[in-house]
Formats: sequence, C-alpha cells, structure tokens
Amino acid sequence: MLTPIRVGIAGLGTVGIGVINIISNNLKLIEQKTGRSIKIVAVSARSKEKQRGLSLERYDWVPNPIKLAQRDDIDIFVELIGGDTGVAKKSVETAISAGKNVVTANKALLAIHGGKLAKLSEKHNVLLKFEAAVAGGIPVIKVLNESVAINKITRVMGVMNGSCNYILTRMEESNLSYSEIFSEAEKLGYLESDPKLDVGGIDSAHKLAILSSLAFGTVISFSGIKIQGIEEITVKEIQYAADMGFRVKLLGIAEITSGGLVQTVAPCLVPKTSPLSQLEGGINMIVLECSEAGTIVLQGPGAGREPTASSVVSDIIDIARNSEIKAFGRSYDDLEDTNISNKPSEAPYFISLLLDDKLGALARVTTTLGNKGISINRMRQYDHDSSRAPVLIITHSTSLKAVTEAITELPKTGVVSSDPVILRIEE
Amino acid sequence: MLTPIRVGIAGLGTVGIGVINIISNNLKLIEQKTGRSIKIVAVSARSKEKQRGLSLERYDWVPNPIKLAQRDDIDIFVELIGGDTGVAKKSVETAISAGKNVVTANKALLAIHGGKLAKLSEKHNVLLKFEAAVAGGIPVIKVLNESVAINKITRVMGVMNGSCNYILTRMEESNLSYSEIFSEAEKLGYLESDPKLDVGGIDSAHKLAILSSLAFGTVISFSGIKIQGIEEITVKEIQYAADMGFRVKLLGIAEITSGGLVQTVAPCLVPKTSPLSQLEGGINMIVLECSEAGTIVLQGPGAGREPTASSVVSDIIDIARNSEIKAFGRSYDDLEDTNISNKPSEAPYFISLLLDDKLGALARVTTTLGNKGISINRMRQYDHDSSRAPVLIITHSTSLKAVTEAITELPKTGVVSSDPVILRIEE
Repeated sequence: MLTPIRVGIAGLGTVGIGVINIISNNLKLIEQKTGRSIKIVAVSARSKEKQRGLSLERYDWVPNPIKLAQRDDIDIFVELIGGDTGVAKKSVETAISAGKNVVTANKALLAIHGGKLAKLSEKHNVLLKFEAAVAGGIPVIKVLNESVAINKITRVMGVMNGSCNYILTRMEESNLSYSEIFSEAEKLGYLESDPKLDVGGIDSAHKLAILSSLAFGTVISFSGIKIQGIEEITVKEIQYAADMGFRVKLLGIAEITSGGLVQTVAPCLVPKTSPLSQLEGGINMIVLECSEAGTIVLQGPGAGREPTASSVVSDIIDIARNSEIKAFGRSYDDLEDTNISNKPSEAPYFISLLLDDKLGALARVTTTLGNKGISINRMRQYDHDSSRAPVLIITHSTSLKAVTEAITELPKTGVVSSDPVILRIEE
Repeated sequence: MLTPIRVGIAGLGTVGIGVINIISNNLKLIEQKTGRSIKIVAVSARSKEKQRGLSLERYDWVPNPIKLAQRDDIDIFVELIGGDTGVAKKSVETAISAGKNVVTANKALLAIHGGKLAKLSEKHNVLLKFEAAVAGGIPVIKVLNESVAINKITRVMGVMNGSCNYILTRMEESNLSYSEIFSEAEKLGYLESDPKLDVGGIDSAHKLAILSSLAFGTVISFSGIKIQGIEEITVKEIQYAADMGFRVKLLGIAEITSGGLVQTVAPCLVPKTSPLSQLEGGINMIVLECSEAGTIVLQGPGAGREPTASSVVSDIIDIARNSEIKAFGRSYDDLEDTNISNKPSEAPYFISLLLDDKLGALARVTTTLGNKGISINRMRQYDHDSSRAPVLIITHSTSLKAVTEAITELPKTGVVSSDPVILRIEE
C-alpha cells in the first residue's frame, strides 16, 4: 500500500459536502481501486458554524482557502468555491504554484482563465483536472481527453444547462409565462445565485468553451461564443414549435467550419421524437462527432450534489492512480489559435411571424425568402381574431446569413407586423 | 520526448487495418497527446498475400502470432484475431507472460477467460486493456473503470449487438420474415462468420459478462447469463408490439437484486418513443445506473472498422501515457463471487396468445393471470378470420416467476390455442 493521498477541500457547499460523503463512505473501494487511501486533511469555507449535515471535526479548519492551497500536508487542492475571479482564482493559482494538483468544478474560471492555468500547471508539473466543471456526472472531459484522443472532432453540441431545460419544459407543460416559471425555478433552488448565468446562456457558454478547446485542440475562446439566452422565449413560440412537431431547447453548439470555429449558445428547435427533445429537468446530453469513433452521445445528470461530487472524486481517483494527462490533453502551447467565425453550418430554420391580413401578403413573404435562396419545407397559417395572422415557416437547410438577410428585408414587404422570431432547427 | 512505444499487431482483418490507418495518419497528434511516438514494429495474420488496401512493407511480417507475442522489440501486443480458444488465447497468454502489455478487442476471450488473464497480467505487472471488446466506439470500459469508479452500480443494460438491431428494425419496416432479413444481413456482411454468435445472443452475452464484472465488482460469469436470441421473433409479434406502442430490441440486462446477480440477454419491448427504441442499425446504447453519478447513458457505433479501431488505439494511448489501471479496475482477487440469480427485477410484460372463440374465454385467461397476482394494464383482442383470436396483454409490473407460472397454467383453461409469447418490457 502506498502512502495516502492528502486532500484539501475549499468550498463546502452542496458539492463539497458531497465529495466528503463519497470519500468517507467508500474508503475500502478507493483503496481497492487506487492501491492507496484518500485522506481529507483540511477544509475551508466562509462559515465554520453553518449546519452542513455532517461533522467536520476530523478535518483541520482553514478559514482562508489561499492558506489551504499552500499547506505542506496536502497533495490535491479541491476548489469548489466558484467564480472566475477573487479567491477561487487566487487559491487555484496558489495551489498550482505550490506544486499541488488541482481538481475543480469551476467552469467559469476555466472558461476565462483555463489557458493560463493549464500553462501554470505544466510549468509546475502538476495536474489540473475538471471533470465536474462540465455537465455534472457525465464523463465528457475524460471521454474527450482520453477515449477519442486520436479522433478529429468536427462538432460538439448538446443541452448543457438543466435549469433552462427545466424552465422550457415547464413552460410547455403548463402554458405559464417565462416569468412565472422562472420564479418557480428560483423558489425550487434550481437557479444560480446570479440566474443570468443560467437563463442568459452564460453557464452553457462556459461549458461549451471548455469542450470546444478539448474537442478541437484550439485555445479556449469564451469571448468568441455568440450567446443568446432563453429570456425572450414566449409560451406562444413554444406552442407554435410544438404544433410543428418540435420542442425548444437551449443548445450549445461548437463546430469547425471552412471559415473557422463557430461557437453558439442559443435556443433551438429539436424534433419532438428526438432524444434531445426528451431530456427532462436536470438531464444533460452531449453529442460528439468524431472522425473515427463516429457520433458518440453521452447523457446523464448535469448537476446536483452526488453527480457533480462523483466527477470530482473521479478526478481525485485519477490523480491517486498516477494519471499523467495534461489539462487539455496535450501541452497548452500545442493548441491552435483558430479563426473565430460567426457563420454556423447550414440548417433548417423555424420562422414565426405575424402577417397583416392583406391580399397577397403570404406571397410577398415567400418571395422575399425565395430571393435569398431560402426554400420552404412546411408552412402553416393560423386562423386569426384580429387583422393579423400567425404564420409559421420551416425552411429547408440554409445559411444563417440568408435567413438574417431575409428577416431584415421582411418589414419592407409592408405586410409583416412584428419582429419575426427565428430559431435554428437541429435534427 | 520519450522513446517510442513499440506495437505488434496480430490479426489484420477490418479492425487491424483500421488500427494501422489511425496510427499512421495521426503521428503528430499521438506525440502531442502522449509525449512519445507509437511505432508499429511487426504484424501477423494468416495470409501475407491478401489484399488489404495498404502496404505492410514497413512492418516485420511474423507468420505465427505466438512468436510475435514473444518479440523483444514490442511493448504492446495487440490481439485482433478473435475467438476464445486457440491461437488468440495462446498468444495473449504468451504476451502477458513475456511482460508485454496487451490490448485486445476479443470479447469472447475476455468473457470466458478474462479472470485468468487479468490475474496473469497482475502477476507479470502488465496492462490488459479491452475498450474495443464491448460496443465498438463507445468508451464504456473506461467510463466504468475510471469515471464512475467509486459508484455502486446497480444495473447495466442496453443494446449491445448491432446486427440483431438491424434485423429487428428491418423486419418491422419490411414485414419480411426473420429468415429473409437474416439472409439480407448475411449478404451485407453484417453477421459474424458464425451468425449464431449474433442472432443467438451470445455476442451480447460476452459483452454483458464483461460489463457486469466491471460494474458490480463481481467475477466474470458468462455461464451465469440466461441467453435468448432473436431467432424465434416473428413479424407478427413485431407488428403486435408496434400496435401496442413498442419495438422489439435484443437487450442485455445485468442487475444486482436481493437474490444476487441476474444477467439476461433476451428480446424485450421498449416504448416506441424511447431513445432505446430509436437506435438504428449498428448503433449501440448502454445505460449505467450509478449510486452517485445517476443514470449515465452512452451511445455510439457498436461495431465497424473505425469505431472499433479508435477504441483499440485509445487503449494504446492510455498505455503510452503510463496508465496504471488494472484490467477490471482493481485486483481481480478483490472481485466478489456473488450468487447468480435467475429472478430479474419486476417489470411489465407483454403477453401474446391465440384465444379460442369460446364464451368466457378471455375471462378464463384474465382469471388465471389474476390468480398469480398479475394485474393487467392494457389488453387488446383482434378480429379474427378463423376460430382463434389474437389477444395482446400488457401487464403492470410483476415478477418473471408469476408470468412464467401463469403461462404454464394457461393451457389448462382449455381456451388458449398456442404457446403464448412473453416478452419483458423495459421502460
């Protein structure tokens, strides 16, 4: 039996307590799997007094996580504080510089500073691991870094935020407004303390930035992501989409195109019968399009104490098993600095608009689309009470550019009464 | 840069050639990912003359794989010969005993002799890796051994054989008989040279035996699997199932019950709308029920040159990265010798039977079921030309024992004209 691997945990929220529970409850299994024991030496959090449902007496209490990161008696610093600035960042940097391996669930920190931290970890010859940072219990970091390591990956997409998934699903079920369901989700504790991170698509974008770098071997570019949240999705649009056979999901999509790397977080339509469409509540799904392995789909709980803690512990186990794999699967300097493009691959689009009840109105709209080379797959005009009729259009595969241009032209027809809604369709 | 890792490949069928292609086409990527190069030193196959679509001139040709396994100039022996006996087994044993790491895609060998080989590899302190042995490109071995390493897993299930999936899907689409679609699949090269391995459920059982051991930490027990193939599934039953909202899939299911370990390969019904039901052709799906990580679903190509070769190469990469993980995630002696049980967890069942057109016939059947505590969820009696009417029953969740006993009782009612078909429903 080797010497125990000694762990310090900074941040004792839901995930931190989950990590302590899992390690404490699986001592024998951990020894069998790693040939050594894992010993939690010290912990750090804002309040020592807070009730957390378990005794922390056996661990040293270190009020300052930066001090914890420097302790001589820890081999792994586990950062579960969160946030891309302040003490989270400082303590991770301190730990790495002090020669400690770091395990973190901090997607924001990695999305913004992952490159710098990866280089620092290489300089100090320590591991920086973050399975829990993306999609909770889904082992997508390991799969990308190890299982499909020699594949060229062309596309990564999926549902990466359970809270948005919950809100969109509940809106469809209940016909209640976005703001009503938002309040419901907030009361249930499903949203981050800054809910804009969830509903504004930022959390999904943090995850997408990390996946994108791992998948394509490109430097992380969070700022290169075009982000649209779900705040402007109305029950009406959800109903219209349902009527055409689709559900609305907030998707993260990253792809290598001829123009460069396109990264987008946006509400999209998926066919009701598709696995993506059937994801419920906090379940995430990530689809990897790989040159050799083919299309690999991973699904599981995207958040929650146990799934996220399980991923944190899997990183600790990897370190205890003497894993040598670098943060982004290779030296960060080997990653490419690819062009960021805003031209996503072609796809069908859903267009929803209100049409004035004038003779030839529909013809003017279809002509405008046709002039931009957009051909129509299906169209539905609804009965109307007022002088304006809802019209839904499903296009054949086309470019975002063509759709955007057509939408800009539409008001000139003089028959479209409101800003059309356009949503990409993923099939 | 470290010294190259030297590989010998035995077996140059579709996967072997795929491995050579992937390694040859990704030399730089491999160096970036592992810090060293992979060098194929020597190869072995039955015929040197066979056209394989690439030049083998740069590799030493070793007619006898057992000689290849002993060569001083290889670090990894890649066994792609297949079969659980003969030269495949002998060459793997020889390689391990000669201190070589082994990578194999040989599910039969592992399912039957995995325990012995794992122990031998521990004795000689080498790695035995087999990501490609289960579900082609799906990284389920790594996920079980590493990602959910500290989870208690209670259930593993899925579609693990693409050929059966193809046959069942085509039967439903075409309304052609099993034997007609079987011939079609054979012509397309979708079946093993001994097709009984596929359609008899044996290939699925090999995979299930391996997964089961990894998931539950139990010694491999291929002989403990109850295996039923798809040979007796008729178009009629597929149509009936479809009429009730289901598709027929050959599922492997392993679960820890209060009575012990239950492992079953059998045709089951899955709801048409479920992701399992929508799997097409060679796509496999594996569902892992984990104590902490939750329900993790993995989907991808279950066979084929590139996906399988990708998994073989991922094992080679792991070895080049100095992985230390034992074949079954821990010392084979630490695995438990669990009771094998034949009492699967309760589930709804589909019962299809032909009922004589007699007064009170249906009542007699439902009474027989009721006497065994089986309650009926849905029932459908069809119109009939002859004096016998097809009746389909979907039960509420019940035990296999109750269903089996009821079926045994049914002929005594004097109104059931043929052996009923019973299929488990997985929801």
